[in-house]
Amino acid sequence: MQPEQADFHAQLIAGLKVQDDAHLADMLDQVPAADIAESFELLQDEDRSRILFSVKPHTAAEIVVLLDEAVRGEVVDEMDTESLTEIVSELEPDDAADVLGELPEQEADEILSELDEEESRKIEELLEYDQSTAGGIMTPDVVAVPSSATVADAVEFVRDATPDEELHEIYIVDENRKLIGTVPLRHLVVNPPTTKLLDIVDSDTVIVNANDDQEAVVQIIRKYDASEAAVVDDENHLLGRITHDDLLDVADEEAEEDLLRMAGTDAAELDTSSVFQAARIRLTWLLPCMFGMLLTATVLLLSENNFNPKIFAILAAFAPMLGAMGGNAGIQISTIIIRGFATGDIGSAKLGRALMREGSIALAMAPVCGLLAWGIVSVAVPILVTSDILPASDAAAIARAVGLAMPLAIMGAGMLGILLPFMFRRLGVDPAIASGPLVTTTNDIVSVSIYMLTATVIV
Amino acid sequence: MQPEQADFHAQLIAGLKVQDDAHLADMLDQVPAADIAESFELLQDEDRSRILFSVKPHTAAEIVVLLDEAVRGEVVDEMDTESLTEIVSELEPDDAADVLGELPEQEADEILSELDEEESRKIEELLEYDQSTAGGIMTPDVVAVPSSATVADAVEFVRDATPDEELHEIYIVDENRKLIGTVPLRHLVVNPPTTKLLDIVDSDTVIVNANDDQEAVVQIIRKYDASEAAVVDDENHLLGRITHDDLLDVADEEAEEDLLRMAGTDAAELDTSSVFQAARIRLTWLLPCMFGMLLTATVLLLSENNFNPKIFAILAAFAPMLGAMGGNAGIQISTIIIRGFATGDIGSAKLGRALMREGSIALAMAPVCGLLAWGIVSVAVPILVTSDILPASDAAAIARAVGLAMPLAIMGAGMLGILLPFMFRRLGVDPAIASGPLVTTTNDIVSVSIYMLTATVIV
Repeated sequence: MQPEQADFHAQLIAGLKVQDDAHLADMLDQVPAADIAESFELLQDEDRSRILFSVKPHTAAEIVVLLDEAVRGEVVDEMDTESLTEIVSELEPDDAADVLGELPEQEADEILSELDEEESRKIEELLEYDQSTAGGIMTPDVVAVPSSATVADAVEFVRDATPDEELHEIYIVDENRKLIGTVPLRHLVVNPPTTKLLDIVDSDTVIVNANDDQEAVVQIIRKYDASEAAVVDDENHLLGRITHDDLLDVADEEAEEDLLRMAGTDAAELDTSSVFQAARIRLTWLLPCMFGMLLTATVLLLSENNFNPKIFAILAAFAPMLGAMGGNAGIQISTIIIRGFATGDIGSAKLGRALMREGSIALAMAPVCGLLAWGIVSVAVPILVTSDILPASDAAAIARAVGLAMPLAIMGAGMLGILLPFMFRRLGVDPAIASGPLVTTTNDIVSVSIYMLTATVIV
Repeated sequence: MQPEQADFHAQLIAGLKVQDDAHLADMLDQVPAADIAESFELLQDEDRSRILFSVKPHTAAEIVVLLDEAVRGEVVDEMDTESLTEIVSELEPDDAADVLGELPEQEADEILSELDEEESRKIEELLEYDQSTAGGIMTPDVVAVPSSATVADAVEFVRDATPDEELHEIYIVDENRKLIGTVPLRHLVVNPPTTKLLDIVDSDTVIVNANDDQEAVVQIIRKYDASEAAVVDDENHLLGRITHDDLLDVADEEAEEDLLRMAGTDAAELDTSSVFQAARIRLTWLLPCMFGMLLTATVLLLSENNFNPKIFAILAAFAPMLGAMGGNAGIQISTIIIRGFATGDIGSAKLGRALMREGSIALAMAPVCGLLAWGIVSVAVPILVTSDILPASDAAAIARAVGLAMPLAIMGAGMLGILLPFMFRRLGVDPAIASGPLVTTTNDIVSVSIYMLTATVIV
């Protein structure tokens, strides 16, 4: 929380205690809705209701839109259908669809039936798109102007448009509402009123299909440094546009999903306020890891008979080191590859280059780690274990085993780090999982197996 | 790579082989610079030079701006100062500063001396800001209009402005160039020419200080859903603006930094094309991990004398499981907290709430993991180790030790997962490190120590 926000929050808490509703409303009128929304997470249900009730309906609607999803869920759950209807009627269709999409279907239908017909039709259309597609994040509010129009005509269209979403481009369509191109607002300002729009149209507009995945939309916007994208259907009919604030939200969302997957949890965790629900989601990732590590234990237990008990005890003490180094080296590689998928830097055409690079880096790191591991174990074992228990020749053999297994484990885990993200992507599974605990576990099993095999041969 | 891009790339390769420079130039004239830039990574140096030489200087400049940093470094290294000067002279000041900032100072100075005076002054001013601050990402190209102006005056200012960056807002300043507010372009379109700008000024403009960190800028833009931010100095003098495409870049960059830190590497790796440099960066994170795991080995070796050799061998086989579970549980928590820092959801005011939540989740997970671990070991050990070597009572004691150590390790690693991000932040270190290999290693040591202590007491 920034200092100004903390100040405001303290002031809000004081206001809620001592002021009556009218004074509270006056105070809240002076602050941006974003500041109020930011404070909501820390407030009790009754204070939230009181605030939403005190401010103007339009401000209440703004606050609801700006809330984090989990907090919004709590707030919406507390409201009766009537208050919700009032708020939804103040919202832009895309925001209204977001709120209604989270309600039980019956309540959503009830609210829709209370809205005016055109508004509710727009919202219903948006609700039909998957939330993670271009259609799911677009707003249908575009200024669409016929191709025969002049600058003067376009100015009239702009005048009539709802001013809530920021307006940067007007869209030129033909008689069937098929998209021809866009005209930046700037051109309306500097060109004479009689100019034909077709003479100043920009046909390089970034266009996406309503069914395109939101991640692909962000990638294309990023590629062309555009500020908004037109959304069309399969026949190029203009359906809406995606604005910069939604793009930033989507970029955040995608980055966050990857981050959480890597940590072995899920974006769903952030949408819930239930501790048990969150624990359940995290256990989904932790428990398979426990079963995986049972395999590591099995590999160790089955190798035990190949060694005398003293030597096995020392080898086993270094097993976590081998597992961790293999696991970390694999994660480094898979993260770089997953990031390349997300930014579009690694596509099928750039596959070979990525493999070469990652393979070379692993090859460069492996001998360094091997030499160092050999050195560490050579020094540590004679210090930790007295020589009357373990002859120096055995200690040296153990050091050689660790020193040789280390580069092999790094190369093995490195290969997994390269292959698993591609495999997951091919299978249609989010490749970010390939940097999560499941794959650390796989790397652990592989590294420890390589270690035990090497030790069996050498010691 | 998207299908259309792959098509274009194939066509470009063919064109480079069979066409002369004039035909190549014709072909490249038809495609957006972003498509050409996207193909650059896969081309040889001589093909890159040939393309930059064939296209119009303005297109060449656009391509250079759109390249990934690592590729841009390679391209710029290949160019002589004269060609570079031509390209830099075509760039917007903020992009020019980005390119020059990567050059050796002497070459940058040489290029600056060739540019026209106003341009080079603007670039030099930008070069003085740290690249990760608002000043480092802003463009100085704003349409700044005196507060006495009317809509008609403002239209003239817009007409005179360089049209390269998108223009959405005009900035109203007083006689000392102190910022008063903004007027969206839309207002110029719909208001009569005689309207005073002060009557339609929007004073809710998002304003940041040039020295603000870029991450803070993205947070404030996100909070207010703004499309651009005004950049001012300590006395509120207007210096420039930050546009939506830079915001998306910064959001990506910040997310990427966190992701790479978590994976035990560094954004610097992406800026280099040298394999050894990349290996060096990754080793910086891996090698401390090796020394950390030496501590785990030490804990195991020092505990060895507390058990009979057979029992120790079995206990040691399960040590990687304890370490991995503790490590993963800790990473889940620290990632959630780090993400909360990055999005601003966890500030000092929300600290207590976050601690409560994470502590409760860990408390809910611990007994589940403990029971399951006890069950797994109870079943697995008698299968893997014959009962004439290990009496059933010993097997049961080992299972109890693992089952009890597991929830303790999860709670211990969980506490570290909560505390370390706060500690790192307090120390001014990027808290994302608290989900990286260094901390996995710490969790491993703590978990295995807890395990050995528990086993010593129980078995």
